[in-house]
Amino acid sequence: MEDTLRRKLEAKPLNFESFFSEKALGMKASEIRELLKLVESSDIISLAGGLPAPETFPVEMIKEISAEVLEKHADKALQYGTTKGFTPLRLALASWMERHYAIPMSKVEIMMVAGSQQALDLIGRTFINPGDVVAVEAPTYLAALNAFGYYEPEFLSIPLDDDGMKVDLLEEKLEELEKEGKKLKFVYTVSTFQNPAGVTMSVERRKKLIELAKEYDFLIVEDNPYSELRYSGEPVPPIKHFDDEGRVLYLGTFSKILSPGFRLGWVAAHPHFIRKMEIAKQAIDLCANTLSQVIAWKYVEEGYLDRHIPEIIEFYRPRRDAMLEALEEYMPDGVRWTKPDGGMFVWLTLPEGIDTKLMLEKVIARGVAYVPGEAFFAHRDVKNTMRLNFTYVPEEKIREGVRRLAEVLKEELH
Amino acid sequence: MEDTLRRKLEAKPLNFESFFSEKALGMKASEIRELLKLVESSDIISLAGGLPAPETFPVEMIKEISAEVLEKHADKALQYGTTKGFTPLRLALASWMERHYAIPMSKVEIMMVAGSQQALDLIGRTFINPGDVVAVEAPTYLAALNAFGYYEPEFLSIPLDDDGMKVDLLEEKLEELEKEGKKLKFVYTVSTFQNPAGVTMSVERRKKLIELAKEYDFLIVEDNPYSELRYSGEPVPPIKHFDDEGRVLYLGTFSKILSPGFRLGWVAAHPHFIRKMEIAKQAIDLCANTLSQVIAWKYVEEGYLDRHIPEIIEFYRPRRDAMLEALEEYMPDGVRWTKPDGGMFVWLTLPEGIDTKLMLEKVIARGVAYVPGEAFFAHRDVKNTMRLNFTYVPEEKIREGVRRLAEVLKEELH
Repeated sequence: MEDTLRRKLEAKPLNFESFFSEKALGMKASEIRELLKLVESSDIISLAGGLPAPETFPVEMIKEISAEVLEKHADKALQYGTTKGFTPLRLALASWMERHYAIPMSKVEIMMVAGSQQALDLIGRTFINPGDVVAVEAPTYLAALNAFGYYEPEFLSIPLDDDGMKVDLLEEKLEELEKEGKKLKFVYTVSTFQNPAGVTMSVERRKKLIELAKEYDFLIVEDNPYSELRYSGEPVPPIKHFDDEGRVLYLGTFSKILSPGFRLGWVAAHPHFIRKMEIAKQAIDLCANTLSQVIAWKYVEEGYLDRHIPEIIEFYRPRRDAMLEALEEYMPDGVRWTKPDGGMFVWLTLPEGIDTKLMLEKVIARGVAYVPGEAFFAHRDVKNTMRLNFTYVPEEKIREGVRRLAEVLKEELH
Repeated sequence: MEDTLRRKLEAKPLNFESFFSEKALGMKASEIRELLKLVESSDIISLAGGLPAPETFPVEMIKEISAEVLEKHADKALQYGTTKGFTPLRLALASWMERHYAIPMSKVEIMMVAGSQQALDLIGRTFINPGDVVAVEAPTYLAALNAFGYYEPEFLSIPLDDDGMKVDLLEEKLEELEKEGKKLKFVYTVSTFQNPAGVTMSVERRKKLIELAKEYDFLIVEDNPYSELRYSGEPVPPIKHFDDEGRVLYLGTFSKILSPGFRLGWVAAHPHFIRKMEIAKQAIDLCANTLSQVIAWKYVEEGYLDRHIPEIIEFYRPRRDAMLEALEEYMPDGVRWTKPDGGMFVWLTLPEGIDTKLMLEKVIARGVAYVPGEAFFAHRDVKNTMRLNFTYVPEEKIREGVRRLAEVLKEELH
């Protein structure tokens, strides 16, 4: 078979590039991603990933539920479903969001998607014209930049601090835009335990953001994969909770509270928006995986989810603690980092002049990996930051990884 | 909850339309689809659907395999996977295609997708620039028109007969295009037991199509969901079998041989094309459902698939026969239909002057539904055709459905 392949690759090649669309010609694989792919399969301590720990998957619950589902609901669980998703699951999620976040919800405000990544693509398709202004946090979720980027918006980067997006700076930018005769289409925010920075937008800023959205007539895309993973501090209501006009498109996902392999997320938004996104999704993949939807329905409806979340939290808290302690212990002066109350990531800012992309190979040579921060900035204009993950690797490895990273950093700072 | 919803829908509405992208403003729900949605939930005999019969789902096999997968492979089956898909499954499919279709295949030529619908969208994204010429059969698969249509190609419609796409007409069109200084980007064909027409492209035409592709330098997208469902006649090799240059992008799916709810298909194509589509898919949904992939791997690898296909065939053959017999018995003169050796659909052509879209409500009033043919034509220029499905409804209902449909037709023809 490999022989055939070699022949195919060598023999009179087509002019492959000539067939690609112009946009496809511009799609490049990330070098960093390729490098980190190699790392994942080695015995390097990877603080680079974004994976949940497999120990947190509720395997026994899923076994139990899937056996029951295949016994009783196989005709639905194995058949095509509607594009909006399995109605009992949408009802269960509506009621769960109402109970947990005090957001009144009806099933027509919910559409199931193939992971919240698909929601990002759908939002791009449904809302972004080339040149539309989209505000993102700086740093922001890398894959959101990829998803939106295809639709060619003009990104507006709004810096973060420990209270999340600096909404006062957004306001300044909005005034400037207005002067230029431009309009903001939407703000994208990972509001709680942000990826990559780990910070949470304060309640005051959430309210202010809603006010600005009304004043300047824009939408808010609130991506909320992590809020259930809270290890300390008090819960903060989603921005959607303060939304009385339907300006917030809320993205939820089962990836961190059940299984990322299910590729199952949801959009909670005004029925007018859901309706259009439903039509868009129809052309893209008809519907989300139904077996996973039926399992997820039982998981939410019968209280498994609420029983399982505390187990995930107990599993991750020591890892978060281990990372913060190790950073405190080993990091040289001049290095700053966030102190997340939840989620999966800590964000490091090094002294100016250090380029974490250039430093990566050196660190990998010492057996540790991280993600250089540059790619999390829409304008790739910040070089001295990195993201560390604390959910995938056990405590002792986290400590050892941070120790080795700190060693390289000390050398660099000399 | 419904009260809240009413308040939201009534109270000071946003100007929703003002937020949509221009392309999204052009996306409309199909009226026919909406009408047929209502039908599916009634006791009307629906020959309109495109659903496999749930009786053909290998529920016991899936139960057995999924219990084993969750026992032994939960860490992989519930975790994020690579964008290309679960490697053992890609290997198993490569070897299955080699065994069944004599197509030499390596795993780097295979990428898993969320149903072949997603492959259609990915192909649009990767290959179509606005205005590119894309040839489709007339009629062709409706959802392919939707998927490609988003990318704004110029569709070229090539008529079908009982031997599939009229490749000689394609050749004429290619000459014309050349004169106009235009180039064909790709031909899209459902080569075997076509949806909607049920016909199969002859071997001669397959070879001729490959020759034309070389001569005029275009690609071929071969969508092959139905070839395993053969009730009579001799198997025909996929077009991909005759492809020695990598011009054919082959789409396979588990929807008709395992479960459509799995939303699992694959693209088999030259590694250069796969590589680009992988980057495109990354931004769209990261990866396909991993639990379904691991189950499908066992299903293919351990021979369940090969054992199950004959069972599906035995289940559907009497339904195909019932439909062809009933058409023979009841249809008035002047009505023609295809005689498929497999697949799920029969295609009816009525005398000129009958508009099947206008006739639909009358037929539904008699308790039967079909899909009017118009939407299967890229240029919507044919009014007197319809698609009938014979897989979902039992034999006696098929007969009764066809009888009632014929009744209305006889009235119309008077």
